[in-house]
Amino acid sequence: MRVSRLFGKTLREEPAEAELISHRLMLRAGMIYQVSSGIYSYMPLAWRSLRKIEQIIREEMNSAGGQEVRMPVLQPQEIWDDSGRAEIMGSLLFRLNDRRDRPLVLAPTHEEVLTSMVKANVNSYRDLPLIVYQIQTKFRDETRPRGGLIRVREFDMKDAYSFDADDEGLDKSYQAMVQAYKNIFSRCGLDAVMVEADSGAIGGKDSHEFILLAEAGEDTIIICPQSHYYANAEKALFQKSAQPMDEPLDLKEVHTPGVKTIEALASFVNLQTSKTLKAVFYSADGEVIFVVIRGDLEVNDVKLNNALGGIAELRLATPDEVKAKGLVAGSASPIGLEGIRIIADDSINLGSNFVVGANREDYHLLNSNHPRDFKADIIADIALAQAGYACPVCGEPLETRRGIEIGHVFKLGTRYSELMDASFADSEDVQRPIIMGCYGIGVGRLFGAAIEQNHDDKGMIIPAPIAPYDVSLVGLNIENPEVSGAAEALYDQLEQAGIEVLFDDRSESPGVKFNDADLLGLPVRLVVSPRNLKQNVIEVKARSESDAITLAPEEVVAKVKELLAAHSA
Amino acid sequence: MRVSRLFGKTLREEPAEAELISHRLMLRAGMIYQVSSGIYSYMPLAWRSLRKIEQIIREEMNSAGGQEVRMPVLQPQEIWDDSGRAEIMGSLLFRLNDRRDRPLVLAPTHEEVLTSMVKANVNSYRDLPLIVYQIQTKFRDETRPRGGLIRVREFDMKDAYSFDADDEGLDKSYQAMVQAYKNIFSRCGLDAVMVEADSGAIGGKDSHEFILLAEAGEDTIIICPQSHYYANAEKALFQKSAQPMDEPLDLKEVHTPGVKTIEALASFVNLQTSKTLKAVFYSADGEVIFVVIRGDLEVNDVKLNNALGGIAELRLATPDEVKAKGLVAGSASPIGLEGIRIIADDSINLGSNFVVGANREDYHLLNSNHPRDFKADIIADIALAQAGYACPVCGEPLETRRGIEIGHVFKLGTRYSELMDASFADSEDVQRPIIMGCYGIGVGRLFGAAIEQNHDDKGMIIPAPIAPYDVSLVGLNIENPEVSGAAEALYDQLEQAGIEVLFDDRSESPGVKFNDADLLGLPVRLVVSPRNLKQNVIEVKARSESDAITLAPEEVVAKVKELLAAHSA
Repeated sequence: MRVSRLFGKTLREEPAEAELISHRLMLRAGMIYQVSSGIYSYMPLAWRSLRKIEQIIREEMNSAGGQEVRMPVLQPQEIWDDSGRAEIMGSLLFRLNDRRDRPLVLAPTHEEVLTSMVKANVNSYRDLPLIVYQIQTKFRDETRPRGGLIRVREFDMKDAYSFDADDEGLDKSYQAMVQAYKNIFSRCGLDAVMVEADSGAIGGKDSHEFILLAEAGEDTIIICPQSHYYANAEKALFQKSAQPMDEPLDLKEVHTPGVKTIEALASFVNLQTSKTLKAVFYSADGEVIFVVIRGDLEVNDVKLNNALGGIAELRLATPDEVKAKGLVAGSASPIGLEGIRIIADDSINLGSNFVVGANREDYHLLNSNHPRDFKADIIADIALAQAGYACPVCGEPLETRRGIEIGHVFKLGTRYSELMDASFADSEDVQRPIIMGCYGIGVGRLFGAAIEQNHDDKGMIIPAPIAPYDVSLVGLNIENPEVSGAAEALYDQLEQAGIEVLFDDRSESPGVKFNDADLLGLPVRLVVSPRNLKQNVIEVKARSESDAITLAPEEVVAKVKELLAAHSA
Repeated sequence: MRVSRLFGKTLREEPAEAELISHRLMLRAGMIYQVSSGIYSYMPLAWRSLRKIEQIIREEMNSAGGQEVRMPVLQPQEIWDDSGRAEIMGSLLFRLNDRRDRPLVLAPTHEEVLTSMVKANVNSYRDLPLIVYQIQTKFRDETRPRGGLIRVREFDMKDAYSFDADDEGLDKSYQAMVQAYKNIFSRCGLDAVMVEADSGAIGGKDSHEFILLAEAGEDTIIICPQSHYYANAEKALFQKSAQPMDEPLDLKEVHTPGVKTIEALASFVNLQTSKTLKAVFYSADGEVIFVVIRGDLEVNDVKLNNALGGIAELRLATPDEVKAKGLVAGSASPIGLEGIRIIADDSINLGSNFVVGANREDYHLLNSNHPRDFKADIIADIALAQAGYACPVCGEPLETRRGIEIGHVFKLGTRYSELMDASFADSEDVQRPIIMGCYGIGVGRLFGAAIEQNHDDKGMIIPAPIAPYDVSLVGLNIENPEVSGAAEALYDQLEQAGIEVLFDDRSESPGVKFNDADLLGLPVRLVVSPRNLKQNVIEVKARSESDAITLAPEEVVAKVKELLAAHSA
């Protein structure tokens, strides 16, 4: 492809609206075009990359025994009401009515439709296992779409679903998908980490995410360099420090004038924060709940939500809501509470004689002990893992990283098959619910994340397997017939060798051409210039390396192939 | 692929709801699954065929210089209001609001978005010509979706757009697309005819359709076997028979008791229908109009709509609307009319002394002549071509056929570029509007139409290049280890030769297996059976031929390749 013919121009100026580096670089390189908030057109360069990613995904899905289908975007809202997800997804779900006023949704995933297809086509254990996938456009009405392709409202996603007769089968399918995912990311030239994850609104049991580590990531990842424990902070476990289990002492009220925070309280009573209990108030679908956790720990909203059995709207309660319940913020106490549920982190049992609020302005209680003084309605691990805490596997200090989720695998179990009565006859002709898994990769997000992870101050450094072209061929002083002749000859030679070339044949200055080549960041740059031609050489440079070499024209194809292979590892 | 593992079971019974043959056959073969009216999932077999069609389209678009992009489904309604198409498309356009109550539409085509992308990326005549395309899901809220993939509400379509500096450039781009379309249909193994067409709601000048002739087609095609004139009946021209231009006589009222139709009138006055004028009343966006045409011809609604400059809602007026205008149905007259527009077919000038209504119950007028007795506000060709009429090119009798539109090409001109101010600087630095063309192929519809055209009473006869697999390999008495051994060996051998095989490895009766193979209609069927094995032969049969031959196993691959090549012409 000649740059002079390419649809999509590079921009000289920084796009003001772009917050993320990948967004800024893609806009500047003329790869994407914003149609509305979180809705993009892919220009030819970005679309070539997305198609390469799709193809890698397709090949690995097929190798893992997946069968490709295509399910529709438009779906009757009814099946989403039946599965309960219309309510769970709330306003993330785009809804519309057709001309006969039948309510429809734009699908964000396809469990419901596929389960009904499987119900119609799977009768017996002989039809299992089954892995079905599609690569298709999905829709989510995000509150705050992020710049570029990381969090958008319309996006291409590969979603796969496995159907098995028993848990052993599910484990096998899950492992096959995990291996396929590892192959996909490695074939894309990306170094993804697999972490334990929460399974969120889709429901289910086991779940892992594949994360590309990058500063701009929205996810916090907890890692242990020692034991290789990797988990999303939403889900991560840690060893909570044990505190001495002293003989319980009697409750005793102390005057704590002006003490409103745990730190102030600990300092006032001259104890560690781990000797205090902290109260946090949430509204769970409108119900105000009292959450209590040891003073040295923080509440993890996702774990809390799971402990509550899945809440559509879980948020911190407002001061008014707290007051209306007769609670004294800053001195709130679980002791003597009535008409309000208490959810406790299991850390309240790790220690004794805690300092806790007295539910009286400027007073706290010493020597509170569970369950002697109050009884939690739910006790669970609802604590947030943080850097420095002890690894749940080996006890060494955990570390945190930022990352972008590019893949997610879930063991769904029988949630959808039971709801929709998708069963099979086992070998004794007993009907059993089919056991499901689901597996997603965001195609555009993968590309965006790849750029977040691979760039420098001059532009992108796109991994070779997913670069729109292999080579930037730059002709300097292209008006010079010797240059254009040599560049055209090299262009032909490369294309005939199966190398994909973006040939900058424009009459632009060397500065503009080099900047554009660095901005787009194709794996290899070749330069044909009057000076090089005098010595009968071509300049060859890998985008990821700082130094160029010069080679005789007949050596170039082999060298380019070598560089591409080295950058596709 | 083994049939025992394939997702999608064949049905024994005829699906009751299916009206079209292609719909019935695809449902029976387990190729599609209905999610809602006009909304389908494609099971693996159909999806393989659609992907092959897509790939052929993509290759030909690329060869014609097209650059592939991907534009979004969700678009702000605003840009559709600006182009006037939100109103023109009316309730065909799916509309919704996002969480912030911003109105969005689901795109049925992409002129608006692409023109804005071109506006941002094309500045100069040096950036032209440009051809951009995508293959993507489109949405139209059809009043009555037809069975199967012929007329659906969600569908995959290839839409291409050309951008040129002048009309000569547009002609060239248009010709390149026409040639690409011919290549595509022929590479799909289909025999499409190219016909002159109306350009409909998209607007524009020249327009052609590509039609697959098939009984079930919704389109009527007018053809002249002599001159090879091909046109959609909506658009087709014909030579209107000349009538004697006699000396105008005086108007004369005649009593015509009970005469309400043209046939009755002609018989009553003892003249040909071509000596009468017929009145038809329409409501054009609420305005009642008087349409007059020679009595031997019928009004073509599409031509009428074009003559009126494009009407959103054009329909026959109701009896009440006619009465309210003081018109006497059955005896209505254009003579002496006031306050109502008269649209006339140009046939009213081909002849003289016509019989026409007197606008008085049971009376008509003899010797009406235009423009002596009344004056039409618009005179145009608004007559419907029919079988037997004279070819506009050679005068020979026209014939009619039924067909399915599978492709459409338009010369849009500057409609969108002027509206959206998409201009370029010409070589003298003068700003001019970019000249556009647009070009569509419905991928699923093409497949449905291919089956409407290619089937017999046993099932589909899918053209080889778009069949999901090349070969049905049928093992009879598969429990017999000799059969399974030979069938497995042949399966491997074929796959290694790059032949795509659907291997029926099920323990089903020969009848079931043969029926299923015929139903799906892959190009070649191979049978491994105990009887054949005794003679060390394999049975080979092309789906489109009635007789099978037997060959030694080592000759099979070459024969299959030969048959596939013969059926891909």
